[in-house]
Amino acid sequence: MPTQFDPPSGTRDFFAREFETRERAFDIIRSVFSRYGFEPLATPAFERLDVLMGKYGEDGDKLIFKILRRGEHEGTGEADLALRYDLTVPLARVAAAYGSQLPVPYKRYALGPVWRADRPGKGRYREFTQCDVDTLGSASGLADAEVICAVHDVLAGLGIGGFRFLLNSRHVLAGLLEAFGVPAALGAGVLITLDKLDKITPAQVSAELTGRGLPEARAAELVAAMTADDAAERIRDALKSSEEGSAGLDEVDTLRSLLAGQMPDGRVVFSPAMVRGLSYYTGPIWEVSAEGVPGSLAGGGRYDHLIEQLGGPDVPATGGSLGVERLLLLLPPEADEHSRLDVAVTIMDQRHAARSFALAAAARSAGLRASVYLGASGKLGRQLKWASDQGARWSLIYGGAEEEAGTVTVRDMTTGEQTAVPASELAGYLARLAGEAGAG
Amino acid sequence: MPTQFDPPSGTRDFFAREFETRERAFDIIRSVFSRYGFEPLATPAFERLDVLMGKYGEDGDKLIFKILRRGEHEGTGEADLALRYDLTVPLARVAAAYGSQLPVPYKRYALGPVWRADRPGKGRYREFTQCDVDTLGSASGLADAEVICAVHDVLAGLGIGGFRFLLNSRHVLAGLLEAFGVPAALGAGVLITLDKLDKITPAQVSAELTGRGLPEARAAELVAAMTADDAAERIRDALKSSEEGSAGLDEVDTLRSLLAGQMPDGRVVFSPAMVRGLSYYTGPIWEVSAEGVPGSLAGGGRYDHLIEQLGGPDVPATGGSLGVERLLLLLPPEADEHSRLDVAVTIMDQRHAARSFALAAAARSAGLRASVYLGASGKLGRQLKWASDQGARWSLIYGGAEEEAGTVTVRDMTTGEQTAVPASELAGYLARLAGEAGAG
Repeated sequence: MPTQFDPPSGTRDFFAREFETRERAFDIIRSVFSRYGFEPLATPAFERLDVLMGKYGEDGDKLIFKILRRGEHEGTGEADLALRYDLTVPLARVAAAYGSQLPVPYKRYALGPVWRADRPGKGRYREFTQCDVDTLGSASGLADAEVICAVHDVLAGLGIGGFRFLLNSRHVLAGLLEAFGVPAALGAGVLITLDKLDKITPAQVSAELTGRGLPEARAAELVAAMTADDAAERIRDALKSSEEGSAGLDEVDTLRSLLAGQMPDGRVVFSPAMVRGLSYYTGPIWEVSAEGVPGSLAGGGRYDHLIEQLGGPDVPATGGSLGVERLLLLLPPEADEHSRLDVAVTIMDQRHAARSFALAAAARSAGLRASVYLGASGKLGRQLKWASDQGARWSLIYGGAEEEAGTVTVRDMTTGEQTAVPASELAGYLARLAGEAGAG
Repeated sequence: MPTQFDPPSGTRDFFAREFETRERAFDIIRSVFSRYGFEPLATPAFERLDVLMGKYGEDGDKLIFKILRRGEHEGTGEADLALRYDLTVPLARVAAAYGSQLPVPYKRYALGPVWRADRPGKGRYREFTQCDVDTLGSASGLADAEVICAVHDVLAGLGIGGFRFLLNSRHVLAGLLEAFGVPAALGAGVLITLDKLDKITPAQVSAELTGRGLPEARAAELVAAMTADDAAERIRDALKSSEEGSAGLDEVDTLRSLLAGQMPDGRVVFSPAMVRGLSYYTGPIWEVSAEGVPGSLAGGGRYDHLIEQLGGPDVPATGGSLGVERLLLLLPPEADEHSRLDVAVTIMDQRHAARSFALAAAARSAGLRASVYLGASGKLGRQLKWASDQGARWSLIYGGAEEEAGTVTVRDMTTGEQTAVPASELAGYLARLAGEAGAG
């Protein structure tokens, strides 16, 4: 017998209220992506081990939940399957498996749990929901713009305010290194350090750059340009000297002008110091930050060769990922109390139970959520307490008195007011209640 | 590199069409259960190994997917977690963990994947969806009736016809054994054999009963009673001699009279030979069978001590399970072709791309599913082919001619008819299209 009954470390049980909050958010996400013509894709919870291993770096591999072989092979202690770690590798597998059967471009979204054996902590789970949106097979900047617009509409649809898209391009970053004379060998490290400009002081960044081997004057010049009040302009100027940098700037500007009409002013900001940790991006990159929220709410970019590296075909690709668990924490609070029922039906005695049971069914037919009392007490007070605990707005009472009078008693649970409704008028009465409850 | 990219044996990738068919069915299931006041419960994909082991018998235990320990413990080859095998054991764990914090009675439904390392076959998967509905904490027959009604409404809501509820009670079965003088020691085996009356001939059943040690005359008498044209009546007569049998019959009749008003005549049939394989039932039991469909679509019953046996508190309980994967196969076929988009927007040249991008956004604002062309071809024919492949009902075209005229060309993809819509009237026009598409 297990000694404790909590869900396993880093996982959660979701009860009605939280479940429904999450489902409502998921419905919004699904409906926005569908409006953009992104199709849902659902892949299995586990993949073959060799599909996942080696795709997430050494540290990532360690966090994969592996599934033991079964039957006679269980004793080997070997794994042959593993829980999915993200939604990108399964997408690459699908692209490899179905190739030419997929539409071109293949625009898909995926929303579902992934599993990582990370140390659980505040807001960090071992089972958590991810949401990815990607377009495979289009090299067009319109595809990047479409993903960004869709993510924007999801955030707006969820009621999240005060967020901004930080926009950059890998080509801008390459041009920056070229313009400031950073040796190619130092490039990757310099970018990782520059990415810290929003976390540590400019002096600290300069020091770290020098530590990486960049001459002190160079480092100071670079940091000064990027932290100046007119940083964007100074960097634009500097990039003119680099062909790749100029192309990157064009890319960013085209994207901004496409997005300008679709969202409020100032929501997309050119952010030349924004690097994004992952090395596989090949074009535009973006992140969503919100006031007062550490980290990013979403992020993505173009990754033209990643699908091939993950085992799929070599297709251009662009996409983004929503930080679903973080977004859920930011949702505006629910206005009203959780209620399980609209209508609670009392059971006065066994003789009238069948009629009460039928009353609940009639309420449901009218579109109301309704249930009979399932407890053992025959006391009305006890049953009304139950009705109130369920959040019911009305109770229906049917006993000897009602049978004699040919009525049903409808009790308003808020006011305590009781109305005797003739049996012949009940259907119409319940329909009116359904209208009040916003059901139907 | 993996040599094959299919999903792991016994699992499936779901693309848009199938995903949406499934989701629509799941929405109906959720909405019916919610109308009865059943609350959703979602538990993690995996549980601690000791929560699952020993709960499914020796054969079941072998089918559990076990998860290898991680980090320094990976080398031990031991498992500490396992994928959930059903939704009942997680419910028992939840009842044990949250006990008095749960409402009384606790009415919950759960809908989600479970995993079993069964040999995959036609219609048999290793990852498949289960749906359970249960009421913990009520000994009332109304709770049994409510579960059956809810399952009935789900099946009717899914559009499934020609199904019947086969109803029996464990007390009827016990009474039957008593009435026909079956020794207690033979009881369980005799019931298992009687359960085969719908699969093998009466003579074969008789022979098997004799083989189990029942005197030949007894076996013949029992089988004759159960297969007679007036079987239900003969068994009712026989049960009068048994106190438990009479009580069981009352239980069945009360349940039938509660259900009678809620569903068409003949939909609930007293089936004294229906046993159900699982031994843990303690009261009414039921199964749903449909014409021409082997096996059952749903089944359940009262199981008053199971939750305690599974590690939870000792509460009365009743519930049922839907054969979701089987039900999905019976759904009426979708009427129309799958379509990804309502409106496809062409891109005539780079100069007009931003305007086309904005047109797609305007269509989405009107509630239409819309996307711009993301390919490389500038040819209208090629782009209209794409629009048609997407199932789009309309295409929007904006190029030099439209710019000059201040219009947008709307092409009806079915008729090929083209309309020049003045820019100022576009919003209204798109709203009308949204009305036609049934969007909004």
